[in-house]
Amino acid sequence: MRNVRLLLEYDGSDFHGFQKQARLRTIQGELESVLARILKHPVKVVGAGRTDAGVHALGQVANFATDSRMPIERMPAAANSRLPAAIVVREAAEAAPDFDARRSARSRQYRYLVLNRPQPSAMLARYAHHVPAPLDAGAMARAARALVGEHDFASFQGGGSPARSTVRRVYRAECRRLGPLVVVTLEANAFLYQMVRIAVRTLIEVGRGRLPAAVTAQGLRSARGQRGLGPAPPQGLYLTRIRYDRTS
Amino acid sequence: MRNVRLLLEYDGSDFHGFQKQARLRTIQGELESVLARILKHPVKVVGAGRTDAGVHALGQVANFATDSRMPIERMPAAANSRLPAAIVVREAAEAAPDFDARRSARSRQYRYLVLNRPQPSAMLARYAHHVPAPLDAGAMARAARALVGEHDFASFQGGGSPARSTVRRVYRAECRRLGPLVVVTLEANAFLYQMVRIAVRTLIEVGRGRLPAAVTAQGLRSARGQRGLGPAPPQGLYLTRIRYDRTS
Repeated sequence: MRNVRLLLEYDGSDFHGFQKQARLRTIQGELESVLARILKHPVKVVGAGRTDAGVHALGQVANFATDSRMPIERMPAAANSRLPAAIVVREAAEAAPDFDARRSARSRQYRYLVLNRPQPSAMLARYAHHVPAPLDAGAMARAARALVGEHDFASFQGGGSPARSTVRRVYRAECRRLGPLVVVTLEANAFLYQMVRIAVRTLIEVGRGRLPAAVTAQGLRSARGQRGLGPAPPQGLYLTRIRYDRTS
Repeated sequence: MRNVRLLLEYDGSDFHGFQKQARLRTIQGELESVLARILKHPVKVVGAGRTDAGVHALGQVANFATDSRMPIERMPAAANSRLPAAIVVREAAEAAPDFDARRSARSRQYRYLVLNRPQPSAMLARYAHHVPAPLDAGAMARAARALVGEHDFASFQGGGSPARSTVRRVYRAECRRLGPLVVVTLEANAFLYQMVRIAVRTLIEVGRGRLPAAVTAQGLRSARGQRGLGPAPPQGLYLTRIRYDRTS
């Protein structure tokens, strides 16, 4: 039995998120069905991050067990020839027997793309969130800094699936402008449900001057939280990198 | 009567090209129907370049006549709110009465994106042509240089719609690597039907080592041309800029 680790890229636009759901098209569902066909046995895929519907990935990591004799280096091309064009296996490698893409992960990095110009983009309609009003990326960067560290992020949690503990450790929280794009980068040991998108929505309100940069620090001190701000839309969000210990 | 000049961006994936065709979804058709609705009179749009099905534009220019009193600065937002997300009016401005987006154009610039890495990209499936075999971008750049100047490009013309004269003046023909992308840039006073995509296909064969870099120069001397090479696929091609005289 080998434990195979995959590096995955996907365009989440036409999928109901990563996690398998009955009768819905999901990344995990497509992967498991294609891997089962090429390896000729049922496959259970574990993903590092459960991205929501419409959210993309450039660096999702997954693993699965197989007793197939197919050389691992052939798996990416074999899978890609059968997967929809919107899901790509970038790499496959043998992992340690105890490697678990989800539980072994030390941190997850997400990036969020805001297109900040008066008119939308024909090419980026599915790949960035369009905000026509001018954003102050410097104020957004200052507000983001308050998120770094170990905090109770209860006020940045989406409804519906409360976590047992709402404490998370954020390693990186940045915002910078690249031409018409404003890019938010967040890295943490783990994220609460919709935490990245609620944080981004808060930063956008700061960038528009409708909330002070101190709002993020206040949010961390108040369980009442972000004054009912919903999450930023999914199409701007990318799971960009998962970190593991060197040994795994 | 005002003559209005538009700067357009579009994702050509789901359209049958720029030019209006009965019962087919085209860029010109969508534009004319939306402009007619907001301006309340029939509109005839002239585009600088007739891009093919699946070809994109970041800098298409078009013009139309109107006697509407709508302020021109309101037209982009008014049009974009009714256009499909894949077509965007970036700018609108009043042009000289004799400005014709097509006939006044001094040059057209196209860019072609080749994704050159072993596995395809989930995000770029509709936005770049995937070539898994390693490409020598330096050899492609050398081959491209032979295209610069005034030449008879008969051997780079696609079938079906022969031009009266096949002489064109190429101002710029470059190829460079940007990470996993190989980008070809061509600028000319005008292009023959499928000329950019046939040139790119030829350059790709050079990059793969299957044709010598001298093949482009030979092609220009021989009407027998590119040994039956078809055009590179449309999804990598972008109409990026149209130049006009300052006075227009």
